[in-house]
Amino acid sequence: MIDLRPINAILGLFVTLLGAMMLLPALVDLLAGSDDWSVFAASSAVSIFIGVALYSSGRTKEPPKLNVRQAFLLTTLSWSVLALFASLPFMWSQLNLSFGGAVFEAMSGLTTTGSSVITGLDALPPGLLLWRALLHFYGGIGIIVIALAVLPMLRVGGMQLFRTESSDKSEKMFPAAAQIAASTFGIYAGLNLLCIVAYTLAGMTAFDAVLHGMSTVATGGFSSHDASLGYYDSPTIEWIATLFMISGALPFALYIQVLRGRPAQLTRNPEVRLFLIIVAVVAVLLVIYQERSGIAHGQTAVRHAIFHVVNLMSTTGFAIVDYSAWGAFSDALFFCVMFLGGCMGSTAGGFKMFRLIVVAKTTLQQFMQMLYPNGIFPLTYDRRPMGDDVSSSVFAFSMLYVAVFIFVAVTLAASGLDFITALSASISALGNVGPGLGPLVGPAGNFSTIGEGNLWLLSFTMLVGRLELFTVLVLVLPRFWRS
Amino acid sequence: MIDLRPINAILGLFVTLLGAMMLLPALVDLLAGSDDWSVFAASSAVSIFIGVALYSSGRTKEPPKLNVRQAFLLTTLSWSVLALFASLPFMWSQLNLSFGGAVFEAMSGLTTTGSSVITGLDALPPGLLLWRALLHFYGGIGIIVIALAVLPMLRVGGMQLFRTESSDKSEKMFPAAAQIAASTFGIYAGLNLLCIVAYTLAGMTAFDAVLHGMSTVATGGFSSHDASLGYYDSPTIEWIATLFMISGALPFALYIQVLRGRPAQLTRNPEVRLFLIIVAVVAVLLVIYQERSGIAHGQTAVRHAIFHVVNLMSTTGFAIVDYSAWGAFSDALFFCVMFLGGCMGSTAGGFKMFRLIVVAKTTLQQFMQMLYPNGIFPLTYDRRPMGDDVSSSVFAFSMLYVAVFIFVAVTLAASGLDFITALSASISALGNVGPGLGPLVGPAGNFSTIGEGNLWLLSFTMLVGRLELFTVLVLVLPRFWRS
Repeated sequence: MIDLRPINAILGLFVTLLGAMMLLPALVDLLAGSDDWSVFAASSAVSIFIGVALYSSGRTKEPPKLNVRQAFLLTTLSWSVLALFASLPFMWSQLNLSFGGAVFEAMSGLTTTGSSVITGLDALPPGLLLWRALLHFYGGIGIIVIALAVLPMLRVGGMQLFRTESSDKSEKMFPAAAQIAASTFGIYAGLNLLCIVAYTLAGMTAFDAVLHGMSTVATGGFSSHDASLGYYDSPTIEWIATLFMISGALPFALYIQVLRGRPAQLTRNPEVRLFLIIVAVVAVLLVIYQERSGIAHGQTAVRHAIFHVVNLMSTTGFAIVDYSAWGAFSDALFFCVMFLGGCMGSTAGGFKMFRLIVVAKTTLQQFMQMLYPNGIFPLTYDRRPMGDDVSSSVFAFSMLYVAVFIFVAVTLAASGLDFITALSASISALGNVGPGLGPLVGPAGNFSTIGEGNLWLLSFTMLVGRLELFTVLVLVLPRFWRS
Repeated sequence: MIDLRPINAILGLFVTLLGAMMLLPALVDLLAGSDDWSVFAASSAVSIFIGVALYSSGRTKEPPKLNVRQAFLLTTLSWSVLALFASLPFMWSQLNLSFGGAVFEAMSGLTTTGSSVITGLDALPPGLLLWRALLHFYGGIGIIVIALAVLPMLRVGGMQLFRTESSDKSEKMFPAAAQIAASTFGIYAGLNLLCIVAYTLAGMTAFDAVLHGMSTVATGGFSSHDASLGYYDSPTIEWIATLFMISGALPFALYIQVLRGRPAQLTRNPEVRLFLIIVAVVAVLLVIYQERSGIAHGQTAVRHAIFHVVNLMSTTGFAIVDYSAWGAFSDALFFCVMFLGGCMGSTAGGFKMFRLIVVAKTTLQQFMQMLYPNGIFPLTYDRRPMGDDVSSSVFAFSMLYVAVFIFVAVTLAASGLDFITALSASISALGNVGPGLGPLVGPAGNFSTIGEGNLWLLSFTMLVGRLELFTVLVLVLPRFWRS
């Protein structure tokens, strides 16, 4: 049997923190005179009460040590349990969301996906809007810490490539995570603050700037307007969003290097380079396409192209125009970009740049091996040798990624959704992007009409995607539960 | 520099054989009083003349020995050069096909894809119909021999899994290929004959039975009717087609085992099992879907379900009804099945069953490795140990398969095709299936209106897919051409 005590203790801390965070929207609603303040107060009380109880039930004298199984279970439970508690305000508020809808909205927030079932955002009380943004903020820092401190140790999907000495022993995982959390939180909060200030200077109200700042750096995509960033119709705001979406999609470990006086690390990093190259190439194709199809011209075409590539590749999912109506070519490009995602140890989801590099290198190696059957072609990453297991691990991840994508798409299609909606909703949830393509779940649409069963499926898909597939799916193996 | 002499000699033989085959449609057209007999006679003369010249230019005293580079080049050139010569009758006939259209039709025949640019098949002179079927016949046996004798030696996409001692040395490749060709040809011709007899007994004219027999066992899909097999409206014919499409998609090496008195090899083979399991599962889903959606009921639903799964999974591509109009769920299932394809060393294309098994085993191994970081989990295939390189090779193949699929789909979309047409035409060509989905390239449509540039792209895609990607794409590496 798996010892649940350390898991309970840590989960308890997370839930208590979530409950404490609920006091912010409670306060905002109280000041704004919205009755929802009591909903947040009640949710906060419930969360803190259960959180403290969980913590007490699991607390031990020594700091908690986790073995591999406990680490898998804790990671998956963290996001699942937090989503349940985070859904309380949605359920109890005046929104009248179903249970599935409320959990979907909470999961979408915590996984920094940004898909929404709520319509009429512009008329929503400020507490609920703030709550959605806070979920992005909480989920964003959470995934960075997990990706840097936990997943490499667990060898999830090739992430052992990023193991450091401090993350090498599973007993040291918790102290390492705490240390990384401390050093990363400052950078994360700093980027949020910069983005908020920039949005304010560009003309947003302070409240909107706070919401969109948290949504941008976490590459989430929740907005306080049904028209999303399109509401402002401001090129300056779009460029600010582009810049900070990129900042959220780059490896946060590099920012620590930069602050330590090694800014060159940022430009010579293979993930950063590949990310920017793909953005540039796809943006050029989109500019040509917009010009030729007469969708937009000149500066507008360039701005829209770069914004939308970054928006989908960073897996944020804002909208400024209905790009889903541009045509089949842009649909296809957007689709590819949604698959790819950002960098390892960022708030972005998707397949990730480092895996693309491993895939390309392994493929090239195979070509060489065919030409020189007796040759030896060792694989490297970032000028260092790469273990054979990394390649196999990325292989398994890739196949699982495709398999989950197909399974979810086929299941959605079975519920009666059309082909493009099913495909794009599947990859959007799996890559934590947010919007899909097509009229229903595209940038001009919303997930409110997609059906209760599909909402649960997509909530699960967001969870699976956010935690790099293996972390969740390993729990399905009977072997996991045997001693 | 690569010594072209042995390549020329073998290519010369192939082209001469193709030219000799052209005398059959010439004879048929002469008997039927069609003017096209002269087209075939001229094409035959040109092919035989150039074939003999090529052969003479490359002939050496010893039997030809091929190194790795020569083998890659020969394999790719075989299909390309044969497609050019095979397109002559299409170009010079009364069909008025463009150059791109004629090469597309020939490549579609030789790769046993079965996509067509010709409309009005029912009114076509018999020579052209026979020529299309003969291309399937020639291409079908060609790919079996190459898959069994050449590709395993070249380590293409994990096919080294099927290396035998006789194919271990590249110098022995040519004698091994000749031996395998001899032992396989009898089985292949026998299956063709059985299928033709069965079709005749079920009510087809002798001529139609010959055409459809060659088209079925080669898992090609060319028909002599615009309505394809739907023309006959005969359950018996559909069941015969189903049976022989399966026979074409199973590993031909097993048939040799069966004839040697080991029929159990067929049922315990992992590829055969997986193929039949997937057919059964998808067929059940399709029966339920047809019943629920009111598309068909009872026996008809069962027959149509099994026929269509086998039809697409064996990458044949006949049509009896417009299954592309059934809805998004069946579209999604058909799409998946088109990806998968048949078994190694069969006439079927696609990703192939053995790769799916390697993928599943590697993924499971990674799960175990995560749970037991210090454990050792060796991979096996068919109860024998599997080299590490097989897994890497299949990995590279998988990623290349997806990359080519996406590249072709995006390029097709850029030409103005809609999303489903672009996606399905891409996978249909890459997997050598034949029809796609949607009104344009679906079972009720045709490739004649897809545009000249797209025809060339799809011809190349069929070639790349037929020769398991690496064989063609390795020629693109500058390194290939350096000494």
